[in-house]
Amino acid sequence: MAPDTFLKACRREPTPYTPIWIMRQAGRYLAEYRAIRQKTPFLTMCKTPELAAEVTLQPLRRFALDAAIIFADILLPLEPMGADLEFTASEGPVIHNPVRTSADVERLRLVEPEADLLFVLEAIRLVRAELEGKTPLIGFSGAPFTLASYLIEGGASRHYVETKRLMYGAPEAWDVLMAKLTTVTAAYLNAQIAAGVQAVQLFDSWIGCLSPADYARSVLPYSKAVISNLTPGVPIIHFGTGTATLLELMREAGGDVIGLDWRVSLGEAWERLGPTDVAVQGNLDPVALHAPESTLRGQVEAILKAAAGRPGHIFNLGHGVLPTTPVEAVSALVDMVHELSKR
Amino acid sequence: MAPDTFLKACRREPTPYTPIWIMRQAGRYLAEYRAIRQKTPFLTMCKTPELAAEVTLQPLRRFALDAAIIFADILLPLEPMGADLEFTASEGPVIHNPVRTSADVERLRLVEPEADLLFVLEAIRLVRAELEGKTPLIGFSGAPFTLASYLIEGGASRHYVETKRLMYGAPEAWDVLMAKLTTVTAAYLNAQIAAGVQAVQLFDSWIGCLSPADYARSVLPYSKAVISNLTPGVPIIHFGTGTATLLELMREAGGDVIGLDWRVSLGEAWERLGPTDVAVQGNLDPVALHAPESTLRGQVEAILKAAAGRPGHIFNLGHGVLPTTPVEAVSALVDMVHELSKR
Repeated sequence: MAPDTFLKACRREPTPYTPIWIMRQAGRYLAEYRAIRQKTPFLTMCKTPELAAEVTLQPLRRFALDAAIIFADILLPLEPMGADLEFTASEGPVIHNPVRTSADVERLRLVEPEADLLFVLEAIRLVRAELEGKTPLIGFSGAPFTLASYLIEGGASRHYVETKRLMYGAPEAWDVLMAKLTTVTAAYLNAQIAAGVQAVQLFDSWIGCLSPADYARSVLPYSKAVISNLTPGVPIIHFGTGTATLLELMREAGGDVIGLDWRVSLGEAWERLGPTDVAVQGNLDPVALHAPESTLRGQVEAILKAAAGRPGHIFNLGHGVLPTTPVEAVSALVDMVHELSKR
Repeated sequence: MAPDTFLKACRREPTPYTPIWIMRQAGRYLAEYRAIRQKTPFLTMCKTPELAAEVTLQPLRRFALDAAIIFADILLPLEPMGADLEFTASEGPVIHNPVRTSADVERLRLVEPEADLLFVLEAIRLVRAELEGKTPLIGFSGAPFTLASYLIEGGASRHYVETKRLMYGAPEAWDVLMAKLTTVTAAYLNAQIAAGVQAVQLFDSWIGCLSPADYARSVLPYSKAVISNLTPGVPIIHFGTGTATLLELMREAGGDVIGLDWRVSLGEAWERLGPTDVAVQGNLDPVALHAPESTLRGQVEAILKAAAGRPGHIFNLGHGVLPTTPVEAVSALVDMVHELSKR
């Protein structure tokens, strides 16, 4: 693989084939990942640069991926802000002291990434040294809204009742919270850039729970502030799920690449976004990796066809690869994208 | 309230104000509902016509609602088809013998609503007698895809891996399953119509997990067959969530009214659907009922404004009312919709 294919696509420059990476490509579907995870608590993996670097590199040894993404969790900046964060086996992330009041918001600290999140920066340096410039490395962070939702709900949520209760009912507290998260997110991503990542992805994974009006009023200004405060010259991927009605607003917030989930048709979404304005990333249904190879191929062909004729498409799933995914399907997918897009 | 306001709006006839009913209006947010639910298992409530009728009428005693909806569960037809259905306190609906193979699909029985689901029909007759024509009564069923997802997953799901695995990997079994569910759904809704419901809602609650291409190929023909086989003259509401990219396809499948969730702007969605072709229902975020009344009022005004100037809007939430909802907020909402839309 040419080392610059992914970065060229981010910049909407022509590439000899469509680059591909996979959200959560270092994850539980890999036996070698599970072997480490069984022995090591998740947060310890994140906080041990050697382990994080090793796990980051695992999928690159198996698949001809066009980018690596540093192994970390979107919630890591919340712990130094004051969140009592735990990853439980059954429930996933839990924050034992959720933020519900103005006083809770006031208590949240800003973060010094070089001190508080040094382990991520060290992992980035280790991975960059290992990769020797052969594959670009992506850094990432949760976006302010998605981070706020975890802080307020105390974990994953279905209806986001507490998040919206604060957003609707205590707009001043909401603004202070989102402003703090904006500062932290921008500083954290800039520190990752300084440590060597060559692109960053802003994960606003759960904005799909919001109406367009709520997103525009209570979220967009903060995402925009994060993006406009990042070190220039490094491509920014702006990603969310369930964003079919939010795409124009996400573009307004910014990003060189807009990440699409599988509920939108890539061709229609790119038309709405303006194909000469931004690149797009996506958008295979992660569950399609459980389908027979002929079905998978049909879906890949449809996505490549919708993106054909202009530069700026990065192939990816519409959300993270699922733990139940067969490794052979991922291998087939990566090769398929390269082969089919070279034609 | 004029008894025919809701039915007129379904038919896009002018009404003196915007009618409102609320999905899951007979539910856990009501103390009088919880009083019955505490003493009686959920399935027993559904299967005891006197209790189902009582619970159906409870919200009408509190609020000036423009329609009643029979108390039942979308999964009721699955039990006589052969599903070992249980409602657990913690997990919600569980099907202990999920459908995963062709043989499982073959074993599913068709249903005789007048025998197998007589309790629903009797509850409908009791409610109609109590209402004396003062408020119209809505019947409902799950749509084939949503029913299939529960049958296959064995309960609620996050990623619908097993459902899509069958859909992609065993299309013949999928077609047989969806054809059986189509027959059962149409027969069940027609039996409800014969028993006296004056409108029906087809709940395809979870189609938002599908790409437009998958919906068009594997779901639309069955929803269309259900709708085209219903007794003529009774308005049909076709509802789903996360449907921002599926609205045109849902309209193609049919229905006099398309139910919208809060992730779409009602005005834009109605434009896409064709405001002279169908009525629309929705679309307040259920969580907005947890907001201060001024915020709630602002959101209600925005929805009414987007719908103004043409007949055919039925106010509702974008999905069912949440158990955490304050009763006073529901009361305020119903009065607000009536007052603001009369102006």
